[in-house]
Amino acid sequence: MSEAVITYHRGMGRWEPDARGRLRQAAMELYAERGFEQVTVAEIAGRAGLTERTFFRHFADKREVLFAGSEELQQLVVDAVEQAPVTAPPLAAVEAGLTAAGAVFDGDRRQYAQRRQRVIGASAELRERELVKMAALAAALGDALRRRDVAEPAASLTAEAGVGVFKVAFARWLHDPAGRSFADLVRESSAALRAVAGGG
Amino acid sequence: MSEAVITYHRGMGRWEPDARGRLRQAAMELYAERGFEQVTVAEIAGRAGLTERTFFRHFADKREVLFAGSEELQQLVVDAVEQAPVTAPPLAAVEAGLTAAGAVFDGDRRQYAQRRQRVIGASAELRERELVKMAALAAALGDALRRRDVAEPAASLTAEAGVGVFKVAFARWLHDPAGRSFADLVRESSAALRAVAGGG
Repeated sequence: MSEAVITYHRGMGRWEPDARGRLRQAAMELYAERGFEQVTVAEIAGRAGLTERTFFRHFADKREVLFAGSEELQQLVVDAVEQAPVTAPPLAAVEAGLTAAGAVFDGDRRQYAQRRQRVIGASAELRERELVKMAALAAALGDALRRRDVAEPAASLTAEAGVGVFKVAFARWLHDPAGRSFADLVRESSAALRAVAGGG
Repeated sequence: MSEAVITYHRGMGRWEPDARGRLRQAAMELYAERGFEQVTVAEIAGRAGLTERTFFRHFADKREVLFAGSEELQQLVVDAVEQAPVTAPPLAAVEAGLTAAGAVFDGDRRQYAQRRQRVIGASAELRERELVKMAALAAALGDALRRRDVAEPAASLTAEAGVGVFKVAFARWLHDPAGRSFADLVRESSAALRAVAGGG
């Protein structure tokens, strides 16, 4: 889990152990207590015992505290699509990409992800931001499939359906009573999509 | 086509033939000329030969000129899902819903839709608004399927995949060299989804 990693940054003439993790923790507490819109960067930095200047070395703005990992996540998924066997059909390649995201969404991450989702659900601006990230993932998946020589409209449709699998698997993973892994829930959702599209 | 219908509204003590259509026409021209962000409601009303007060009787704000039809579109789709035969499998019911949208996206509408899409594509705010409308359609389709006793995760997956079919069919319809109907392109995209999910 990235928050658990101790990172050091030279800041204001002293060392700040895990400044990024502390800022993220402080931001999540404040967003949960008062709502995202009501919190300032100065307050986040203050609660973390750091300066605003240090905040801006780690995050572009207070929204990015919540979305900083999404480019890495997208790259992880796209890389796994590209590394799928040449013979893998489009949906199997996307499924391989999505299960790779299980490396980020491990058991330790679940509680953080639940809190993050509550904060996002309470803010129209953040919900829109999440939709933008999902649209970017669909576009990146479509590009990755076209690089695998998947034709249109199959590439776009597989990418859109794949993001649907991601969303459904993620929502189930957040609150799965059996605590199943994200990869297992991707496989479950993907099988459900095949059943619906094959049988319907 | 709704813009072609002459509607009368009592306004400022006189009759205004097709005020709504004139406002929409004026807004589209101005957005295309100068970009959505640079245009004011006063300018739209001015070009249409109407007052701001008349504008606000027809549209909540300048963004709604572009999105005013989306609730009706969603209702049209959801109604058709509900009216699909009880025996229709989930994806077939969604396909019936989406083809019903062909009543709105007819040939006359294509040029307006192309211009609208260029305006939306040029503005981050409008692109986000479009994503919100698509997310609302996915939620409404999921609700309609659950009312048809489709279980989870099949209902959510079919809804998400259905919105994927809608997006792909709409993008193809906008610029289809053969001028095929929206309903035909829904059927094509739906068949491609079945091929991908069944064969992959």
